[in-house]
Amino acid sequence: MKIIVDAMGGDNAPQAPVEGALRAKKELGVDIVLVGKESEIRRELGDRAGEVEIVPAEDMITMDEDPVSAVRNKKNSSMVVALRMLSSGEGDAVVSAGSTGALLTGATLIVKRINGIRRAAMAPVLPAGEHGVMLIDCGANAECTPEYLLQFACMGSFYAGKIMGCENPRVGLVSNGTEDSKGDELRHRTFELLKAAGDAGRINFVGNVEGTTVFSGAVDVAVTDGFTGNVLLKTAEGVIKFIMKSLKGVFYKSTVNKLAAAVLKKDLGEMKKSLDVNEVGGTALLGISKPVIKAHGSSDASSIFAAVRQAKVFAESGIIEDIKANIGFFRTGPDEGSKAE
Amino acid sequence: MKIIVDAMGGDNAPQAPVEGALRAKKELGVDIVLVGKESEIRRELGDRAGEVEIVPAEDMITMDEDPVSAVRNKKNSSMVVALRMLSSGEGDAVVSAGSTGALLTGATLIVKRINGIRRAAMAPVLPAGEHGVMLIDCGANAECTPEYLLQFACMGSFYAGKIMGCENPRVGLVSNGTEDSKGDELRHRTFELLKAAGDAGRINFVGNVEGTTVFSGAVDVAVTDGFTGNVLLKTAEGVIKFIMKSLKGVFYKSTVNKLAAAVLKKDLGEMKKSLDVNEVGGTALLGISKPVIKAHGSSDASSIFAAVRQAKVFAESGIIEDIKANIGFFRTGPDEGSKAE
Repeated sequence: MKIIVDAMGGDNAPQAPVEGALRAKKELGVDIVLVGKESEIRRELGDRAGEVEIVPAEDMITMDEDPVSAVRNKKNSSMVVALRMLSSGEGDAVVSAGSTGALLTGATLIVKRINGIRRAAMAPVLPAGEHGVMLIDCGANAECTPEYLLQFACMGSFYAGKIMGCENPRVGLVSNGTEDSKGDELRHRTFELLKAAGDAGRINFVGNVEGTTVFSGAVDVAVTDGFTGNVLLKTAEGVIKFIMKSLKGVFYKSTVNKLAAAVLKKDLGEMKKSLDVNEVGGTALLGISKPVIKAHGSSDASSIFAAVRQAKVFAESGIIEDIKANIGFFRTGPDEGSKAE
Repeated sequence: MKIIVDAMGGDNAPQAPVEGALRAKKELGVDIVLVGKESEIRRELGDRAGEVEIVPAEDMITMDEDPVSAVRNKKNSSMVVALRMLSSGEGDAVVSAGSTGALLTGATLIVKRINGIRRAAMAPVLPAGEHGVMLIDCGANAECTPEYLLQFACMGSFYAGKIMGCENPRVGLVSNGTEDSKGDELRHRTFELLKAAGDAGRINFVGNVEGTTVFSGAVDVAVTDGFTGNVLLKTAEGVIKFIMKSLKGVFYKSTVNKLAAAVLKKDLGEMKKSLDVNEVGGTALLGISKPVIKAHGSSDASSIFAAVRQAKVFAESGIIEDIKANIGFFRTGPDEGSKAE
C-alpha cells in the first residue's frame, strides 16, 4: 500500500504533511511518497530522508487560484504531479491539504470519475452518533439533479457500510421537514428515486430528515446538494465556535468559575476535540475512480496522519469496485445537469 | 394597543397563552383579547376574568392538519377568529403558538400580504452578535425567486433597523462561500439584485456569507430561501442539543467533575437559555399587512409574554408603513414564482 502525499498542501506545509506521513509510515506500515519542493522536503526530513520516497514538483497551487486554470497550467505543481502518479498507478491513494477546488478539479480531470458517476462529491464524516454521519455532498456541486443525489446516496451508503462500520446504513434526504411531501422540486424528485432504491433493497432509505436529525445520530448518511450541504456544515462550525466562546465567557466570569473550569479542563478539551470536524480525518472525494482524500487546510501533523489512515482504509475497502459493479442501478437517463458542467 | 392572543395555540395552551398575556397586560400596559374555548379560558383565568377581553371560538386547528383546508374549514377556530379580528381592525397584532403552516396560510388568506409583496416570510431572530441576527426566510417558502429574496432582504433590513436596534443593518446573502461568484443560479441572480439595491443605498448589502458568519455576528440580516433557512435553523438547533449532551457527559464523568459543574450550574443555565432560539421571542411573519407573531409550539408563559412584547414593538414600529412606502423598489417584474402558489 503506497500513499501519495502532497507535501506542499495546507497552511502548515511542508512540516505537517511530512511529519504526519512519517508517523503513518511507522504506525500503519504504509509506504509513503512525498511530492513537492525537494529541498524543502529534505530540510524537513533531516536525517530521516531515507525513510520515504520523494518525487520533486517545484510548482505549487495556491488557495486563491482559479481551480481549473491552476490544474491546467501548473503541470509541475505538487498536487497535479501527485494526482498524475495516482492515475498512472504509481500509488494507491492521494492525500492533500491543498485547495479544495483544485483537488476536486484535478481529481476529476486527471484521475477521472468512475465510469457512469455524474459528479464527484465531497463527503466528510461529521462527529455524531456511534459511527459519525456522512454528509454528501458538502460543497462540490452547488447545482444538482435528482440523479446526482441518488448517486451520492448510494456511494455514501457503500462508504458507511464498509468504512464507517455501519450495518445496513440509514440514508436520509436532508429536507425542511420529515414528512414525505416536504422540500422543493429537487427534493420531491429525489425522494421518489431514493424511495425506489430503498424499495429495491439497494439502500436503507429512512426518508426526509431535518438539520436537527443530522446531529442526533438517527442517520448514517445525510444526502443533500453541495449548496445546502455547505451551508449545513458551515452552520455547524459556526454554532460550535459560538458555543465555545459562550462557554469561555462562563469559565472566566469569576474566580470560583475559573477554578471549577480548571478541574474540567482536560475533559472539556477532549470534548472540544471530538466536536472538531477535522479530527475525524479528511474528506473523501466520492465518485473518483481512485481514492483521493482532502485534508483540512489547517491540518497539523496528526490530521494528516488521520487522513493517510483514512486513505489506506479507503483503498483497502473495495468500495470503488462496489460502486462500479452497481453503477447500472444509479442511472436514470441522460445527464440533465451536463450543461452546467 | 390591543394584542389578540390565540389562547388555544401551542403545547401548553390555554395555560401558557393566558398567563403570558396577563403578565404582558400588567407589565407592558397593553390590552389583551384572548380567543378560544370560553370555559377553558375562564377556568384558567379564575378570579382574573375581569382583566381581559375574551372572544369565544370553540373550534381548534391542530398541528397535524393540512394548513389550507384547516384555515378554510375551521371558521370558528381560535386562530382563524383571531386573524379575522386583526383583519377587521379589532386589534393591532396577533400572537399564536399554534400550527406554523396554518398561521402562515391564515395570515396570507385572511389578513393578506402587503400589496406588492410576493410572499410572506418566517423571520426569527437568532441569538448571535450584539442585537441578534434575523434569518429570513426560515421555512415559509421552499421555492423562491430572486425577487422574493430581494423583498426578504429589504423587509429584514427595515425590521433590523427599527426593531432590533441595528444602525444601517448589514444584510448578507447565505451562500456556499463568500466570493461574489459563489452559489447556485438562484444565488447568482439574487446577488445581482441585492448588489443593485445596495448600490442604490436601499440596503447595506455586505455580500455572500457562509453558515459560520450567521453566528459570528458579522451580519444583522441573513437572507435565504425557506428551504435552506430551515436546514440552517434546524442544524443550529441540532448542534446546540448535541453539544449540551456532550457537556453533560463531561459533567457527570467523575465526582470531581460533578462538583465543579455544580459551581458553574447557574451561569451555564443562563448560557443555555441565551442559546435558546425561543428566548428571543416569537418569529415575525414579515410581508403580512398587519403584525402577526408566531410563538414556538412549546412556548411557556414567559415565551408568550416575550412574543406579546415583540408584537407590541412591531405594531408601534411603523415598519409595515415603511415597506408599503418603498414597495416600488422591491419589484422586478411579473411574479416568476406565481405558478408555484
